[in-house]
Amino acid sequence: MDNPYVLTHQTPTHKDYIDTTDFDQSEILDIIKVSTAVRSFLKSGGTLETLYHQNLAMIFEQKSTRTRVSFEVAMEQLGGHALNLAPGAIQLGAHETIGDTAKVLARMCNLIMARVDRHASVVELAEKSTVPVINGMSDYNHPTQEMGDIITILDHLPADKAWNDVKVVFVGDCTQVCASLMMITTKLGMNFVHYGPQDKWLSDDILNIGRANVQQYGGSVQVSDDPAILKGADFLYTDVWYGLYDNETPKEVYMRDFYPKYQVNDEMLAATENPNVKFMHCLPANRGEEVTDSVLDGPHSVAWDEAENRLTAQRGLCLYFGGVAQDALNEIKRQKEE
Amino acid sequence: MDNPYVLTHQTPTHKDYIDTTDFDQSEILDIIKVSTAVRSFLKSGGTLETLYHQNLAMIFEQKSTRTRVSFEVAMEQLGGHALNLAPGAIQLGAHETIGDTAKVLARMCNLIMARVDRHASVVELAEKSTVPVINGMSDYNHPTQEMGDIITILDHLPADKAWNDVKVVFVGDCTQVCASLMMITTKLGMNFVHYGPQDKWLSDDILNIGRANVQQYGGSVQVSDDPAILKGADFLYTDVWYGLYDNETPKEVYMRDFYPKYQVNDEMLAATENPNVKFMHCLPANRGEEVTDSVLDGPHSVAWDEAENRLTAQRGLCLYFGGVAQDALNEIKRQKEE
Amino acid sequence: MDNPYVLTHQTPTHKDYIDTTDFDQSEILDIIKVSTAVRSFLKSGGTLETLYHQNLAMIFEQKSTRTRVSFEVAMEQLGGHALNLAPGAIQLGAHETIGDTAKVLARMCNLIMARVDRHASVVELAEKSTVPVINGMSDYNHPTQEMGDIITILDHLPADKAWNDVKVVFVGDCTQVCASLMMITTKLGMNFVHYGPQDKWLSDDILNIGRANVQQYGGSVQVSDDPAILKGADFLYTDVWYGLYDNETPKEVYMRDFYPKYQVNDEMLAATENPNVKFMHCLPANRGEEVTDSVLDGPHSVAWDEAENRLTAQRGLCLYFGGVAQDALNEIKRQKEE
Repeated sequence: MDNPYVLTHQTPTHKDYIDTTDFDQSEILDIIKVSTAVRSFLKSGGTLETLYHQNLAMIFEQKSTRTRVSFEVAMEQLGGHALNLAPGAIQLGAHETIGDTAKVLARMCNLIMARVDRHASVVELAEKSTVPVINGMSDYNHPTQEMGDIITILDHLPADKAWNDVKVVFVGDCTQVCASLMMITTKLGMNFVHYGPQDKWLSDDILNIGRANVQQYGGSVQVSDDPAILKGADFLYTDVWYGLYDNETPKEVYMRDFYPKYQVNDEMLAATENPNVKFMHCLPANRGEEVTDSVLDGPHSVAWDEAENRLTAQRGLCLYFGGVAQDALNEIKRQKEE
Repeated sequence: MDNPYVLTHQTPTHKDYIDTTDFDQSEILDIIKVSTAVRSFLKSGGTLETLYHQNLAMIFEQKSTRTRVSFEVAMEQLGGHALNLAPGAIQLGAHETIGDTAKVLARMCNLIMARVDRHASVVELAEKSTVPVINGMSDYNHPTQEMGDIITILDHLPADKAWNDVKVVFVGDCTQVCASLMMITTKLGMNFVHYGPQDKWLSDDILNIGRANVQQYGGSVQVSDDPAILKGADFLYTDVWYGLYDNETPKEVYMRDFYPKYQVNDEMLAATENPNVKFMHCLPANRGEEVTDSVLDGPHSVAWDEAENRLTAQRGLCLYFGGVAQDALNEIKRQKEE
Repeated sequence: MDNPYVLTHQTPTHKDYIDTTDFDQSEILDIIKVSTAVRSFLKSGGTLETLYHQNLAMIFEQKSTRTRVSFEVAMEQLGGHALNLAPGAIQLGAHETIGDTAKVLARMCNLIMARVDRHASVVELAEKSTVPVINGMSDYNHPTQEMGDIITILDHLPADKAWNDVKVVFVGDCTQVCASLMMITTKLGMNFVHYGPQDKWLSDDILNIGRANVQQYGGSVQVSDDPAILKGADFLYTDVWYGLYDNETPKEVYMRDFYPKYQVNDEMLAATENPNVKFMHCLPANRGEEVTDSVLDGPHSVAWDEAENRLTAQRGLCLYFGGVAQDALNEIKRQKEE
């Protein structure tokens, strides 16, 4: 029987959290376990100092609200501190090489988190850094979002379904959030659909990651532009229609591609034929474009829980990759038994 | 008899601190009580952890020195943490709606403080946020400055006067600091004068707030361009001659309007016929314009105490709107009795 | 005999740390003592809260990675907090005078650190501030770098040499790091050489500081463009070939002046005829210009230890100028004896 205070892995198999594809399901479940245990404990009024005097350097090559606030609060709540190295404050690969920055920060800090323009940058940071590096979003994937999202999905599982029966539909453009959602849902054996225009589907390279997961863990992965695919969805998820990485796309272009077919509105919710379908959005949202007010603010929306779970996940990730996740669980157990 | 360790209001009547007009005198006195009690306690070497692991999100749509430093230090000194969301780091109403930002921050942080371009923004933030929002200055008012200023006035009351006999003269342009000073001094039943050119007087809408306070609490509110009004002033207060919100005003325009008549200099101090008159300035100052070096650096100036009381006030405000002001007073009492 | 837990000076002779020329050798040794004692203690798993609830305001007129991260982590590790006032967040001498900013920050914070464009700015800050001011680099010198560098040199002393027999050669342009290295090495009686093109040598004004040190403490100070001077060097140190303060210098100009003669490469290491010669660099480095990859990443390089010693030094400086260096040593002694 699963012991809620014991992790399968006492230390990560990889020093860094760059891509969930590096980890097997049992490790993902470990991170979920520590994340949700700490959430419950803090909400019940407990305090943890497991990251006491640990310093996280946060490198941002782009603006960030959710990732920045969630990591900074996560570190503070666990006794540590996060340094905000804002866009321009450190120019990765400009003033000095990425490797040199990594080596210097690793001499002063305990953890590094980086939101980068190019995925290769965070990979190189991790290679050169002697301390753990967490990928805070690249042009390829968004694995901290993944972790918050999968926790949100598990929080809102249909009462009558095992998690591997769940159907998760991502609607719209193949952003890195779409790719990441596919990676994590299939890692847990769920059924994933990317519903969008054919020329915006996830690439085969990325789909192959999901297909490998399906082989190992069950579930399914599909792409489709047929609205019939929406039927039976437990979760509808969308993102803005233009990536942060191609923000030169004129509005008329992406509206032509996606509107109105791929807008998540009341009609689309109805098309799922599931009265309990949940709506998710990584935010920020362009209201009236990819989602209507009635959906984002309505009873099906779990987007605000999802935002809060960014914090839930960051605490778990900092503990796990800081090598003290089991310590945190031990401390929670100890305090509860007092 | 007033008990220095007991507040009239255990919880605020309004979740948010947007406008002191929302609060009656007894609540303002509560905030002053906790602010000054904590100041004395910390200065005597005491430590408080009343905001332990509480996180304040500070949103700045404009640059700030005093507001930012005072809030960040206030949170730290009470065991908490402040996140600096600098101008551009979060674009209120740009990347996402103000309401969405409010909802997200409220899921991760315990308090929000915002310095905004338009007053409507901080009002909307407060409406949408489930956690308390503190107005860190808008184009309408500056209520955290008010609180530091009223504490400074009470610190420097003439020995022979009750506070409701005090005369406070604001000299110059009807900035939001001028409006706020009127609101808080009349809330405490003091006598307030705006001394400036007629076309720069506080508007009737704003003066009506003061007039209502006078009806309820006594005191008086006047506007005047007659230098005779300076006689008997206990406090002369000034601000820069161009608001932060209309910084396109060319220097020659505002110099023509205000100089030399409304410059606070030794002659103006003499015109009060009060050898103990105090000089206040919210800072930053344009030395040689609205105030001379001899006044700002002279024996009448309490401008640096006033700056320090920004910190005094922010501690009190964070405790009060954090719902733990009475807890802080209890803890101070407990430690003193040990 | 030297007691590792007792400082010669219980309080600094100067409130501020602007220029090591203000301090005699015994004070520099005090700062080194507390810096290295705290380093050892923290590395052994100890924790110190000597700067509990102390706040350091960090003013940056320029971008910074190492100085900013090292101070922020140093304060956090000792129980305090550092506020990052990034370039543009406070405009020294723009919105308000330097003196006014100093007076305000001194009312809210316990320490100030400033990286400034002009040395006169940090001097004025110190004059007007009632709390200690630490110079985080100016166009004249870089005394916190000095402290980290001298600790690095002492960490890597040749086994067979007293420190006053050591030969330190700075290669390249007379940057403020070059000047600072000369100041601190001669303060400890070491032998310093600036090896560079004649028109880039340290000025006589600056060399005279070194010459005065030599008179008082022994050692030597030389400038030379003769490669024979490299022989017997224990440390080769270089910096980028264009100062941060004259970054308009076109690359072809500085390459013409310095390349290839003054590049630190394997041939230059060999020219020292010292198989144990160490390589130092304040970083960031322009790889392939002032230093080759083979040197910076090779076995002679102590550049990463040097980066880490920025943190070592900042902890010592904050404790020393915070007036609690002896308290920290007492606490370390107490905990070790437990």
